[in-house]
Amino acid sequence: MKKSSRRKFILTSAAGSVALAVNAKSLNMKSKQIAHHVFFWLKNTGSVEDRDKLVEGVKTLSKIPEIKELQVGIVADTQKRDVVDASWAVSELMFFDTLADQANYQSHPIHQEFIKNYSGLWSKVVVYDIQQV
Amino acid sequence: MKKSSRRKFILTSAAGSVALAVNAKSLNMKSKQIAHHVFFWLKNTGSVEDRDKLVEGVKTLSKIPEIKELQVGIVADTQKRDVVDASWAVSELMFFDTLADQANYQSHPIHQEFIKNYSGLWSKVVVYDIQQV
Repeated sequence: MKKSSRRKFILTSAAGSVALAVNAKSLNMKSKQIAHHVFFWLKNTGSVEDRDKLVEGVKTLSKIPEIKELQVGIVADTQKRDVVDASWAVSELMFFDTLADQANYQSHPIHQEFIKNYSGLWSKVVVYDIQQV
Repeated sequence: MKKSSRRKFILTSAAGSVALAVNAKSLNMKSKQIAHHVFFWLKNTGSVEDRDKLVEGVKTLSKIPEIKELQVGIVADTQKRDVVDASWAVSELMFFDTLADQANYQSHPIHQEFIKNYSGLWSKVVVYDIQQV
């Protein structure tokens, strides 16, 4: 392959990868992961201060290497409907590559430190562990 | 700019974008979205056939343009703990750019068709609407 052709090939491949990343809406283009979605209810229901403290606490978890992606959330201002549970205050959604990574996360020192420092803020936790299909 | 330099520049930029997409673990590199997470409980609790039918049904929703990403899931085989709710059967996690997109999704014909064709399978639905922060 001539140098210029090789450059062109690499360029085309790189551009292809960008397109893949940007258009990765399809269900089957990503490998299947474990999603771990946790909802927290505050002891001080409705306290914005405690909610924001907990949001900051959850964000410290992003340093744990097993967590491939972390999303932190609060209740969205969508239509009130019977099926919508809007009684919680903070959510953490994290993605793991394997069940073993999820188990290791549970005992990771940063996670343990988070529980020690922030569990005083919440009254209830509900966890959903999801295998993507 | 000489032709070869320009090529090199484009190549470097493209490679940079790929790295950005691949390493997008950080909390602040993506714009904040609305996550809509729905959990379904089956009428026929434990029916793998009905679970798989509902999974296929949920996947039809991916054609709705307002949905920027759709993840479909079943219960992951993680450790049984009091805080973990593993009583549901199928989950759909979708991401919208705006609250208006989420509202439009609710009335979209493909969503209405999904409800018409598949609601006979489920006995209970719980929805969490999350504003990423």
